[in-house]
Amino acid sequence: MKAVVKADESVGATLMDMEVPKIGPKDVLMRVKAVAICGSDARFIRSVPALMARLRLPHIFGHEASGDVVETGELVTSVKKGDRIAIETHIPCGTCYQCQTGAENICRNVGIFGADTEGAFAEYTRVPENCCWKLSPGCSYDMGAVMEPLGVAVHGVMAGEVRGQTVAVLGCGPIGLFALGAASALGASRLFAVEVAPKRLAMARQLAPEATVINPQEQDVVAAITEATDGLGVDVALEVSGSPLALNQALQAIRRGGRVNVIGSQAGPVEIDVYRDVFHKEAKLVGVWGRERWQTWWVVQRLLDKGSINPEPVITHRLPLDDFAKGFDLAMRGEAGKVLFYP
Amino acid sequence: MKAVVKADESVGATLMDMEVPKIGPKDVLMRVKAVAICGSDARFIRSVPALMARLRLPHIFGHEASGDVVETGELVTSVKKGDRIAIETHIPCGTCYQCQTGAENICRNVGIFGADTEGAFAEYTRVPENCCWKLSPGCSYDMGAVMEPLGVAVHGVMAGEVRGQTVAVLGCGPIGLFALGAASALGASRLFAVEVAPKRLAMARQLAPEATVINPQEQDVVAAITEATDGLGVDVALEVSGSPLALNQALQAIRRGGRVNVIGSQAGPVEIDVYRDVFHKEAKLVGVWGRERWQTWWVVQRLLDKGSINPEPVITHRLPLDDFAKGFDLAMRGEAGKVLFYP
Amino acid sequence: MKAVVKADESVGATLMDMEVPKIGPKDVLMRVKAVAICGSDARFIRSVPALMARLRLPHIFGHEASGDVVETGELVTSVKKGDRIAIETHIPCGTCYQCQTGAENICRNVGIFGADTEGAFAEYTRVPENCCWKLSPGCSYDMGAVMEPLGVAVHGVMAGEVRGQTVAVLGCGPIGLFALGAASALGASRLFAVEVAPKRLAMARQLAPEATVINPQEQDVVAAITEATDGLGVDVALEVSGSPLALNQALQAIRRGGRVNVIGSQAGPVEIDVYRDVFHKEAKLVGVWGRERWQTWWVVQRLLDKGSINPEPVITHRLPLDDFAKGFDLAMRGEAGKVLFYP
Amino acid sequence: MKAVVKADESVGATLMDMEVPKIGPKDVLMRVKAVAICGSDARFIRSVPALMARLRLPHIFGHEASGDVVETGELVTSVKKGDRIAIETHIPCGTCYQCQTGAENICRNVGIFGADTEGAFAEYTRVPENCCWKLSPGCSYDMGAVMEPLGVAVHGVMAGEVRGQTVAVLGCGPIGLFALGAASALGASRLFAVEVAPKRLAMARQLAPEATVINPQEQDVVAAITEATDGLGVDVALEVSGSPLALNQALQAIRRGGRVNVIGSQAGPVEIDVYRDVFHKEAKLVGVWGRERWQTWWVVQRLLDKGSINPEPVITHRLPLDDFAKGFDLAMRGEAGKVLFYP
Repeated sequence: MKAVVKADESVGATLMDMEVPKIGPKDVLMRVKAVAICGSDARFIRSVPALMARLRLPHIFGHEASGDVVETGELVTSVKKGDRIAIETHIPCGTCYQCQTGAENICRNVGIFGADTEGAFAEYTRVPENCCWKLSPGCSYDMGAVMEPLGVAVHGVMAGEVRGQTVAVLGCGPIGLFALGAASALGASRLFAVEVAPKRLAMARQLAPEATVINPQEQDVVAAITEATDGLGVDVALEVSGSPLALNQALQAIRRGGRVNVIGSQAGPVEIDVYRDVFHKEAKLVGVWGRERWQTWWVVQRLLDKGSINPEPVITHRLPLDDFAKGFDLAMRGEAGKVLFYP
Repeated sequence: MKAVVKADESVGATLMDMEVPKIGPKDVLMRVKAVAICGSDARFIRSVPALMARLRLPHIFGHEASGDVVETGELVTSVKKGDRIAIETHIPCGTCYQCQTGAENICRNVGIFGADTEGAFAEYTRVPENCCWKLSPGCSYDMGAVMEPLGVAVHGVMAGEVRGQTVAVLGCGPIGLFALGAASALGASRLFAVEVAPKRLAMARQLAPEATVINPQEQDVVAAITEATDGLGVDVALEVSGSPLALNQALQAIRRGGRVNVIGSQAGPVEIDVYRDVFHKEAKLVGVWGRERWQTWWVVQRLLDKGSINPEPVITHRLPLDDFAKGFDLAMRGEAGKVLFYP
Repeated sequence: MKAVVKADESVGATLMDMEVPKIGPKDVLMRVKAVAICGSDARFIRSVPALMARLRLPHIFGHEASGDVVETGELVTSVKKGDRIAIETHIPCGTCYQCQTGAENICRNVGIFGADTEGAFAEYTRVPENCCWKLSPGCSYDMGAVMEPLGVAVHGVMAGEVRGQTVAVLGCGPIGLFALGAASALGASRLFAVEVAPKRLAMARQLAPEATVINPQEQDVVAAITEATDGLGVDVALEVSGSPLALNQALQAIRRGGRVNVIGSQAGPVEIDVYRDVFHKEAKLVGVWGRERWQTWWVVQRLLDKGSINPEPVITHRLPLDDFAKGFDLAMRGEAGKVLFYP
Repeated sequence: MKAVVKADESVGATLMDMEVPKIGPKDVLMRVKAVAICGSDARFIRSVPALMARLRLPHIFGHEASGDVVETGELVTSVKKGDRIAIETHIPCGTCYQCQTGAENICRNVGIFGADTEGAFAEYTRVPENCCWKLSPGCSYDMGAVMEPLGVAVHGVMAGEVRGQTVAVLGCGPIGLFALGAASALGASRLFAVEVAPKRLAMARQLAPEATVINPQEQDVVAAITEATDGLGVDVALEVSGSPLALNQALQAIRRGGRVNVIGSQAGPVEIDVYRDVFHKEAKLVGVWGRERWQTWWVVQRLLDKGSINPEPVITHRLPLDDFAKGFDLAMRGEAGKVLFYP
């Protein structure tokens, strides 16, 4: 079968012919119908050492995917041939403290589909039974492929109250854009979208027309939000950009008693004025990681079914898997929202 | 000034000339610009004995109101002449356990504006300073007048999680209709509207087009909801009808681990299968009363400002106060949604 | 091996010789070291029809048990021979909505150890791997055997805030007594213990010396609690007796904004003044069922390890399994707290 | 009357004769019976510029106090002459967003008793009516005087779940010691007390004998906690020391999904590995400030009344106000726990 493969230690990836995966007794074989590029896939392309050390080469990557179950292992009971599924990427151990207490996404021994297993930039992929989400009848494969990153945004929004709250989203890449839509769908009132790239600001305007757009190259983010909220600050800031500067802006832009949800991967240590921005303000800084198994998936599926969140404006490119190089090029240059491949 | 007055013990009410109220040092005088009929106002018309015992006749009633501050008492600091306000109707004592711990709406000694004070079916009304909500700049007097009942619905919806949840509303009078809109605006996914009256069902369809409408005269409510949810039941039911039968349907229509919020005034004792419908199911039955001072008002104002909840379809009649008798007739016959008067 | 068996439809039970259970690939075989009588075991003795319809006779019952793992199935990975364990009695399906969202105790297809499987009034018993709780090093088999019912009490106490709260426990059988101790250990301030039986009142005094004891045959429960709380009422009432009368007393004894947790099995329908006692009071009625897998077990184990809850005063009898008839006789006559058997 | 006064800009304070305060219509005059040194009082002694800029000299300071109401203003209704009270030190504006939504302790315009008003190191002090807490009948003046700092600890512990949780307290000055006792009383299971000073470690052992004591000069804090929790980490860390190093240890010592409550004043900016210690770990960093009006006071009073928290071991010195210099000397050298003065 065709697959996008990390063949060796060099930078880049190769489309090549690979064996169709063998499945174990608790796995299913999925015919991939749609698979999206995740921001973290760039780490494969770039051959990030910490990641490379974890792989057995040649390695197929890719994990935001949907498709059809075409074969099931002998112990599989909850999905069957013909089921349409999306892939949950946390693979929990099931026995640690976190798994035992309803927090499998932060399992101490968690494996990641596509890194610790072979991935989905391929015609077929092996999926553990307990990573299969059955798509609702009206849900397209395209929507199925973006449920995983949409889940990151929804989980990030739901980590604390947003109903009736004012919410600022810092960083409007695909996850930030999804977070903007999710915040609005989940009851936020006034929205602020902070972003530099014009294309992303345009997508933000489409996804949440009611949002106030702030370009940090043109305005002081903290001052703009403070003024727009009559000096109060926002109730909640969602930091999705990964920038330490933005994280500090978020902490300053929230009101006393406000909250910052950390959804983006902060690049390096961050200097924080904990006295002023956390302690005296009685603020909360909340890390949110991945998605909850399976609470987040239920919410994502239901919001898609209701139509109150619409990922379409974020999906900017749809390509055959053969054009993977073009897709990655667009994504890594920041020219694209979500890029979908069809193997 | 003109006012609608309960003049004596007999059934009905009278439009008559009354003195403009005198205000105390902690009061404001409000020129009433819009005032709506509340379901509970019928109790004045009907001369319900428990209510009559509480009044000093002649008594002006009416409490869902907005207007302009035209005079302020000498100790008033938080509102000023010219402010546009709506009236919060709970008058808390400020010193009981509930007031001390953030639950003024269930103050042990709570007074009710319009019953324990003179009300707002009049050209002017006296409002305690701590019952004044300042309208946002873009908020009309009409919207101001319905913020109080909208607050009942919003508080009822917010008493527990609804984000991503399936929600059934039983009883689609004005509060139920508002609850339907509020549930959708605050993140509910699938909605069910249960109601007998065709006019109300039509309003439900306008307010929440995505809702599944159930007429209990045509369908078994519990069976219909159970089937539509693949046997699971809804996550949340909002009982707004006041019917003990509906309350039991609500308890049966929710899933294991679900919740029923009691928003409607139950008429008399209710027989409940607590073992089956609360205990074994690990369900919650949650009383919700009035609105939270002032959390609910902030949410209501912000959702109106965002436009994610629109009370217009519920406002079916707008009349001069002189036509109060016609308005009450419509409301008490169930022919109307919200009726607004302009004094 | 010796076992207490429901041999046929007639009332009672028989100590007889049975085969040592065969285990499947995901089971362990446990040598039972201690097993306690649960209130619900009386339903086996009494041959309650709904229960009998579920059994395949002859049937070994009993489920509050601890012991040693002596054999493990070929697919078992999380426990091993020699491990000391207690038994969790909910057997979840793992795939329903409730299981997928962290509420396995209310799984739609839940099985119960000892009813849907053979039980533990025996020398050996078969335990599914995912029902094994490993005892902490210092935890005795006796403590292990009462962790399951202690978990019911702890889960019942933790279903809502109790820290600093005033708490009334209605019904001081073993679960009520455990709830009294758990409420105190988990931060409740003032405690009330409501019970008729003198032996149980004496145990309540031992378990929570700080509790105010109320005998409903001597005092009006609602009046006594109301007076002792300066007219406020208690924050939380835990209904453990199963009596509809007590449930109504609980609803009346709580303050505005208070909560009643339903821990006991209500015998038949209950007439509730929902308007007065739930709606107007903004009260909550909360069903609590079983224990949370595994949050409750972690709390129970840790409180036992800390010594802040001590079940010893509730364990009134320790007998060889040969004396099962005597033990059951004591328990069903209300003469005992917990009765432990040693097979 | 005698009072400890900041007479001029120089370092130190002076015991001198001052006028008995005049009270306004909404104030009471309190005869001070006991008043304790707060860590923040050292800022008066040291003439910290930011603080000095806020004062009108000569200024009486001191705020952890209890006493008798000896006079009331004409508009005062909730306390009366003869009432025994303690002082709540937050003076909220009552009208900002935070005040309107139940968070008066983080009022945008909050005043602080003893800094923005004259304080209580004196025979008499003026107290705003809405800062009076009535002591329960059995509560001594000494306990009354430490309720305010005890409230800081209780609020810090209650900002998130602790029931059944493992809790580390970093920094065992008076607030840390109170937090240790409060965590245990409010349901924490295993406790760790981290502190350098031998006298404080001894007090920690008295206050919470079940706690594991860790001296960072002898042990690696993170390693010690990690090992003692079988590699898991603690559920909750309470940072009370104010040290950036300790804050980072706290973040590393908590488990995935854990929480750090910031109770101590961090001295300067803190460099945090947000990716590793907040984001990837899905941790929470929670600022806690002061006490909640009045939820915290109710909990503090009730725990004192129950006897489940005992501040006595922390009160190391009791002196006449005349010996204020000696008391401050002990406190500022770290030789004391709480120092009480009797004016």
